[in-house]
Amino acid sequence: MDERTARMCLASVTEPGHPAVGTAVAEFGAEAVWIGLLGGDEGPLTARARLIRPAELVQSTKATGQRFVIPGDDEWPVGLADLAGCDPVQQLSGEPVGLWVTGGGHLGELSATALAVVGSRASTAYGDLVAADFSADLSEAGRTVISGGAYGIDAAAHRGALAGRTPSIAVLACGLDSPYPRGHTRLFERLAESGVLISELPPGEHPTRVRFLARNRLIAAIGAGVIMVEAAVRSGARNTLTWATVLHRVVMAVPGPVTSATSVTPHRLIRDAEAVLVSSAAEVLELLSPLGRATGSRPSEARATDSLSVDELRLFESVPGRGARGADELAVRAGLPMPTCLALLSQLADRGYLRQDTEGRWRLPPRAAAG
Amino acid sequence: MDERTARMCLASVTEPGHPAVGTAVAEFGAEAVWIGLLGGDEGPLTARARLIRPAELVQSTKATGQRFVIPGDDEWPVGLADLAGCDPVQQLSGEPVGLWVTGGGHLGELSATALAVVGSRASTAYGDLVAADFSADLSEAGRTVISGGAYGIDAAAHRGALAGRTPSIAVLACGLDSPYPRGHTRLFERLAESGVLISELPPGEHPTRVRFLARNRLIAAIGAGVIMVEAAVRSGARNTLTWATVLHRVVMAVPGPVTSATSVTPHRLIRDAEAVLVSSAAEVLELLSPLGRATGSRPSEARATDSLSVDELRLFESVPGRGARGADELAVRAGLPMPTCLALLSQLADRGYLRQDTEGRWRLPPRAAAG
Repeated sequence: MDERTARMCLASVTEPGHPAVGTAVAEFGAEAVWIGLLGGDEGPLTARARLIRPAELVQSTKATGQRFVIPGDDEWPVGLADLAGCDPVQQLSGEPVGLWVTGGGHLGELSATALAVVGSRASTAYGDLVAADFSADLSEAGRTVISGGAYGIDAAAHRGALAGRTPSIAVLACGLDSPYPRGHTRLFERLAESGVLISELPPGEHPTRVRFLARNRLIAAIGAGVIMVEAAVRSGARNTLTWATVLHRVVMAVPGPVTSATSVTPHRLIRDAEAVLVSSAAEVLELLSPLGRATGSRPSEARATDSLSVDELRLFESVPGRGARGADELAVRAGLPMPTCLALLSQLADRGYLRQDTEGRWRLPPRAAAG
Repeated sequence: MDERTARMCLASVTEPGHPAVGTAVAEFGAEAVWIGLLGGDEGPLTARARLIRPAELVQSTKATGQRFVIPGDDEWPVGLADLAGCDPVQQLSGEPVGLWVTGGGHLGELSATALAVVGSRASTAYGDLVAADFSADLSEAGRTVISGGAYGIDAAAHRGALAGRTPSIAVLACGLDSPYPRGHTRLFERLAESGVLISELPPGEHPTRVRFLARNRLIAAIGAGVIMVEAAVRSGARNTLTWATVLHRVVMAVPGPVTSATSVTPHRLIRDAEAVLVSSAAEVLELLSPLGRATGSRPSEARATDSLSVDELRLFESVPGRGARGADELAVRAGLPMPTCLALLSQLADRGYLRQDTEGRWRLPPRAAAG
């Protein structure tokens, strides 16, 4: 049995986000784990494994127009590797052993510029409008929108992206042969023309609450950041933001009327500095742009550090004399929360202390680095 | 000539916020400055001073139902003293030499619990609703709303306060005998029944652009904090928030729809951590309450500091072993911006590391202080 088929079998008998699976596969390889499972004691997992017919699984994947993508493939999203080392959220963790994919898009290429837009199923007209507007602008700017497939903000995000020039990614918590919810069948079909639907679950599987939670970690991991548009006090989107925080992604939230229940969670996250307030796609791009802020960048002169605040100075000193560092690493080194770190990096770039290179990493401006 | 009359004369010939006036009065006393001015070279100020008839000024103040309040009086707002030492904003600075006051309220008592609610003249229905709601709740909770007298958010704030149990303070940029704008004559009358109108300008004076700017420093200085409800990109309310920042007041802003031009400035201030996001009067009170957060306060146990972030630890260590310190002083000592400082103080209180005393100052909880 080859690596891909072994991973497909493992993905079929284990639940997404099971902490032990990723670890075992990383240590022993998928084939060894699969063979070990088949020959194991009479546990429920072994019992399920013995029911699997690998050839049938390969066949049903193919028959339903899907492909099975694994780590190392061109299509594998780079960001998923971060799930291997990060803290669990609600006992879920781990890089997926593989992904079922359908659609005309190239998952790897689309993932490289992906940004998540998430929010409430029970969204308001305002939230739908904002999600669609942001997504259309991001898509037009060459950014891939990634989201779930639910009613409300998820659907508005995909519809917005369809209006732009970059296809979107929908991450589902069920088999892609019968994508849930049924009411979005037409939306999923349009999306799959040039975008992709992806899932950790094999054909025939239905969504469960835990599968939705495990799914959220993929949305957070594949994107460079997560934008929460609307979410009531208890919302699945909150869980996606927790994953984004754990994974050091850029966490953003869109404000709304204080009279709206669906803006309570975004406001709380902004207030507690867990998310950066964004009021337009341009602001999102500014936060994430590999070429620094859209306006006012003067990255060419070394400046005296006398005028820097203690936090700014600490951040400035975390940037190496030669080479560059990512914002996530700088935040850790300077001991600053990510939103503060990003805000200060932007300010430092505006004032000429730092610049971002083409990979989005931070470095000293040429003169300061030379001197 | 007595001190009060000398100050009244000085206030009548100098423009509000003239940097030299407060300094000279503090150094030489009002009478000496006034006598010096009368005997000075033929400058425009001396020319104006010689036209003043002190007895007429006292008479017109009395005839228009006003009183003239000076530092040291019971009615003098304590917060105004902070204007003596702070940095100028647009070349304006200084504690007023005196204030004309009208209305049935006691300016000193009302000022002691004052909070400013400011915003755009060209407000939206949403902004008016939020300003009135916040102000009604603050007034009901015993907090004095202080604002200007303009159309839009100012008026909505006063109307909201009238619905509560605490009268409000209106700070005008003209003589109180003909309060501007005329369209608010009835509102000012109702406000003056148990609240107060105040101004740095003598009877008969009209508002000017600079007088509005000088007036803003009083709104910021008298209140313990400033709440911006709505403001377009260029707005006088932005200037009031600059004063509040300079004076280390709690700077708050209310978010709104990202599709609304009048929420652009609040969103920008929140995003850049210049203002704390507030979505209800309860959240405002929580930020300012002398008894700590409304919910979840567990201020009784000393905790290990291992789990604190670098910023939290720095803040925690800025709190003295005995006694207490205000948030503004802690922010300076810890080198943190005020919004960050307030957010972290709340979190530290929630987690039992710190408590607020009845004067709103921060101290170690009993056990930690003892140990």
